Amino acid sequence: MSEERIVALLHGRDRAGIVARVSGWIYARGGNILHADQHRDTQEGIFFQRVEWVPAGDVETEMRLFEEMARVDLDMQTSLMRSSRKPKIALMVSGFEHCFNDIVMRCRSGEINCQIACVISNHEKLRWMSQTYELPFYYTPVTAQTKPAAEAEQLDIIAKSGAELVVMARYMQILSANFLDTCGVPVINIHHSFLPAFAGAKPYHQAYERGVKIIGATAHYATKDLDEGPIIAQSVVRVSHRDTVEDLMRKGRELEREVLSEAVRCHLEGRILAYKNKTVVFD
Amino acid sequence: MSEERIVALLHGRDRAGIVARVSGWIYARGGNILHADQHRDTQEGIFFQRVEWVPAGDVETEMRLFEEMARVDLDMQTSLMRSSRKPKIALMVSGFEHCFNDIVMRCRSGEINCQIACVISNHEKLRWMSQTYELPFYYTPVTAQTKPAAEAEQLDIIAKSGAELVVMARYMQILSANFLDTCGVPVINIHHSFLPAFAGAKPYHQAYERGVKIIGATAHYATKDLDEGPIIAQSVVRVSHRDTVEDLMRKGRELEREVLSEAVRCHLEGRILAYKNKTVVFD
Amino acid sequence: MSEERIVALLHGRDRAGIVARVSGWIYARGGNILHADQHRDTQEGIFFQRVEWVPAGDVETEMRLFEEMARVDLDMQTSLMRSSRKPKIALMVSGFEHCFNDIVMRCRSGEINCQIACVISNHEKLRWMSQTYELPFYYTPVTAQTKPAAEAEQLDIIAKSGAELVVMARYMQILSANFLDTCGVPVINIHHSFLPAFAGAKPYHQAYERGVKIIGATAHYATKDLDEGPIIAQSVVRVSHRDTVEDLMRKGRELEREVLSEAVRCHLEGRILAYKNKTVVFD
Amino acid sequence: MSEERIVALLHGRDRAGIVARVSGWIYARGGNILHADQHRDTQEGIFFQRVEWVPAGDVETEMRLFEEMARVDLDMQTSLMRSSRKPKIALMVSGFEHCFNDIVMRCRSGEINCQIACVISNHEKLRWMSQTYELPFYYTPVTAQTKPAAEAEQLDIIAKSGAELVVMARYMQILSANFLDTCGVPVINIHHSFLPAFAGAKPYHQAYERGVKIIGATAHYATKDLDEGPIIAQSVVRVSHRDTVEDLMRKGRELEREVLSEAVRCHLEGRILAYKNKTVVFD
Repeated sequence: MSEERIVALLHGRDRAGIVARVSGWIYARGGNILHADQHRDTQEGIFFQRVEWVPAGDVETEMRLFEEMARVDLDMQTSLMRSSRKPKIALMVSGFEHCFNDIVMRCRSGEINCQIACVISNHEKLRWMSQTYELPFYYTPVTAQTKPAAEAEQLDIIAKSGAELVVMARYMQILSANFLDTCGVPVINIHHSFLPAFAGAKPYHQAYERGVKIIGATAHYATKDLDEGPIIAQSVVRVSHRDTVEDLMRKGRELEREVLSEAVRCHLEGRILAYKNKTVVFD
Repeated sequence: MSEERIVALLHGRDRAGIVARVSGWIYARGGNILHADQHRDTQEGIFFQRVEWVPAGDVETEMRLFEEMARVDLDMQTSLMRSSRKPKIALMVSGFEHCFNDIVMRCRSGEINCQIACVISNHEKLRWMSQTYELPFYYTPVTAQTKPAAEAEQLDIIAKSGAELVVMARYMQILSANFLDTCGVPVINIHHSFLPAFAGAKPYHQAYERGVKIIGATAHYATKDLDEGPIIAQSVVRVSHRDTVEDLMRKGRELEREVLSEAVRCHLEGRILAYKNKTVVFD
Repeated sequence: MSEERIVALLHGRDRAGIVARVSGWIYARGGNILHADQHRDTQEGIFFQRVEWVPAGDVETEMRLFEEMARVDLDMQTSLMRSSRKPKIALMVSGFEHCFNDIVMRCRSGEINCQIACVISNHEKLRWMSQTYELPFYYTPVTAQTKPAAEAEQLDIIAKSGAELVVMARYMQILSANFLDTCGVPVINIHHSFLPAFAGAKPYHQAYERGVKIIGATAHYATKDLDEGPIIAQSVVRVSHRDTVEDLMRKGRELEREVLSEAVRCHLEGRILAYKNKTVVFD
Repeated sequence: MSEERIVALLHGRDRAGIVARVSGWIYARGGNILHADQHRDTQEGIFFQRVEWVPAGDVETEMRLFEEMARVDLDMQTSLMRSSRKPKIALMVSGFEHCFNDIVMRCRSGEINCQIACVISNHEKLRWMSQTYELPFYYTPVTAQTKPAAEAEQLDIIAKSGAELVVMARYMQILSANFLDTCGVPVINIHHSFLPAFAGAKPYHQAYERGVKIIGATAHYATKDLDEGPIIAQSVVRVSHRDTVEDLMRKGRELEREVLSEAVRCHLEGRILAYKNKTVVFD
């Protein structure tokens, strides 16, 4: 498919006729709808829609007019993107390479449509690999004392890189509330447990102690409340009494990279709407 | 939700504006769309839609007018149902009780919205259980010689029962092409393997011989070509060298009943469109 | 397999040569080992073994001598059972029928090897179904005031029934610490969440509020600490923003019955050793 | 765990007392058994065992004596390995990088215990990546005419590399019967379907045409009969009518790399015994 496509995400107070209005508008302007998916939270009275179409006219014009129609006629908030554009992302990492490596590989193969603008780490360990991939690597060591300054530097790197998304690919520091407030773009994190079980530190050790028969990983938007942000994707795998903590870690790595890459892909394809600490994921 | 709902399934040649027309029509007549889901087979140029709404006017009138609009304006084939109506089904069984029992329980709990009009069996074994459930039980023994006569009797029972769906709940006879032609209503079958692997007889023995590490079950619409009909639902479970053929059968029973009940539920909720020996399942 | 088998579960302080001694003893007495599985918790220094064999001599004698050898020579605690014996269980239920029904069906088919000695309920709802199955039904209503008396009555019924296991098949009352102390036999409960997530009341509502993408069910031994007992089995299923609380409940019912029946089957086959609030499940 | 371990795989005609003899022998020589797992194919009368222990004496001596005991006393075939040794493997690749990359990463992290001795490809595409990883890359183009010569060259490279296992990481040529005969070491292949479904070419296209609801991948030992060798590992993922052939390929890549790496890991840890075109996998 070589024609450029527009993806629109809408949400707002539910009312009759939204689907008819949206599809009627696109149809009337000669557009060809490829996918349309909607959801109603009937309890909260909120309407959500993702619609993807090939416009007949100039893409930027159509995007502007659609946004206007949705806002004025339907009182909907919109988020729009065009398929030809490759958004930039910032990767934050520490010592683990599996999630980092997985995202890089998927970006290279085109499975995740983005450009990695920078790699930021509190360790030197992945510098070599970043350079192999020809990605700009920034070392920002973090201690209790230097954390504010380090975060200020990280925010500066992110801002200058033009990243529209920050991905914490097993970055082992907690981002401060100030960082998240100031950052200005969404932050996706991977927690190595099946949240809300085993929030906090050392989840595999917690899981081992509790003797669960299934472990998991959870990708979520980072918020001020640690491990409490809107969940995007989760995955699980069976374990048994035979599995040591090390086995849980090994099995968990598979989940972590799968779930984080899935969350990043869905976000960049405009499939996620977060509200009330939950997500609608149009898949 | 106590208001009556209409479910419409549409399919036909894809063209621009179908979604706009369908939603616009319902909106204009005061209807409230609860769910709408569509699919395009872009390769074949076919459009599929399931739409569920609460009509403002008389239900039968709205159904008639909708069908007319879809046919005349959009050249779409439609299938319509109303939520207050409980369709009748016929169950065909042999000696196994797990699928039979599972469907009965789900009908009783309301999870599957239907009325079991008759139980037809080539064995006496489940008569007692049918009677416990207060279901009419028909014993139609089948041998190579008596098969045509037995099938004629079965077709007569089905026709008189008013069943709109036949469910083969581990019925261990092959229905003839003539039966399927004459039957006049869809027939759902469960095959105890992950089709197309291990079609035909004794699939668990075949799976054991081949040494697979996962087994499955498949619910499909029965067609003249044995085990070749459109697949509705499949499920799988891991096995190992420790599992005997008997273990495969035990694990498989769970899959069979889960998958068959899922297929029957989806069919009765108007979620399935079959075409080109495949299915679209709106879930 | 028509010969009688002995199953022994052993556990105790790990030391060299246990496997050699156990298998050597059985071999020397002419027994034929069918299955042997062992586990070491190297951190805690505990050894666990399940061994199943066909003895050459009188079954009761062999059981007695084996227990003696394991105790005296190896300082191991043992639990022994013979395949020809059908243990009795007590089912505790409330209004939900899916777990109750599932266990009954598996007992009838022989998949779970036991005899249901009594059904105890704080509701009348499942009386009719129990009677259909020809199971003795005891109605013991429970209010805040009557709970001690009701539990005393329940304990009396269980004791008189000869049950060696109590199964809470969605019994919707919390058993008191006194009940569990006095009961004298293990109690298996099903919690309708993926523990430790969503312990306590209304787990499906909690899961819906948190917006998780996977829900689960957990079978565990009941202990004084509610929802904190040793986990036996867990299972999960994917959910999405489309699922209402009612959908979670419907999907969860499948998990509950699968997981509870699995736990009961494993317990009765002598596959479970509980220690340090965890379980070893030899499967 | 820093002490060296021995892993022994045994199989042969079943007889009484094997477990007692093996564990007794190790115990008598001062060894400490860490894991022991056995299996009986009662239908075929074959016994299988994997035992892992820390020997008290010189490792090579213990291995030699154990092999002798198993052969002479028990008439068992054995395969022995020691934990300190890192076996060499040969990777055969074509244009796809996901399986190649996954195995390399796991070797680097130590999850798979081996040394990649050479990368052999009929394409130049992965040369750059191989060199980045500092792996010797051999380009052996294959056409119908040059195939015998190319295979001879490949066999020569493998022999000289000292590889004890060949891994076809989406190598897109069929290895001839002569290659497999001459090779002298096991060959593991990944087939991108849930075998025996969709053997042969273009399995994702076949799966799409058939309309299955689940797709899979299968790792197996390569034999002369294409896609018919003993199955080692399989995994599956759900698909729907929304998935195009390209989606199946994308989802399938995850399965392929997971399943192939799992098979390679199990093989190198001495967990697999192949017999009668099946495998026993001690996990």
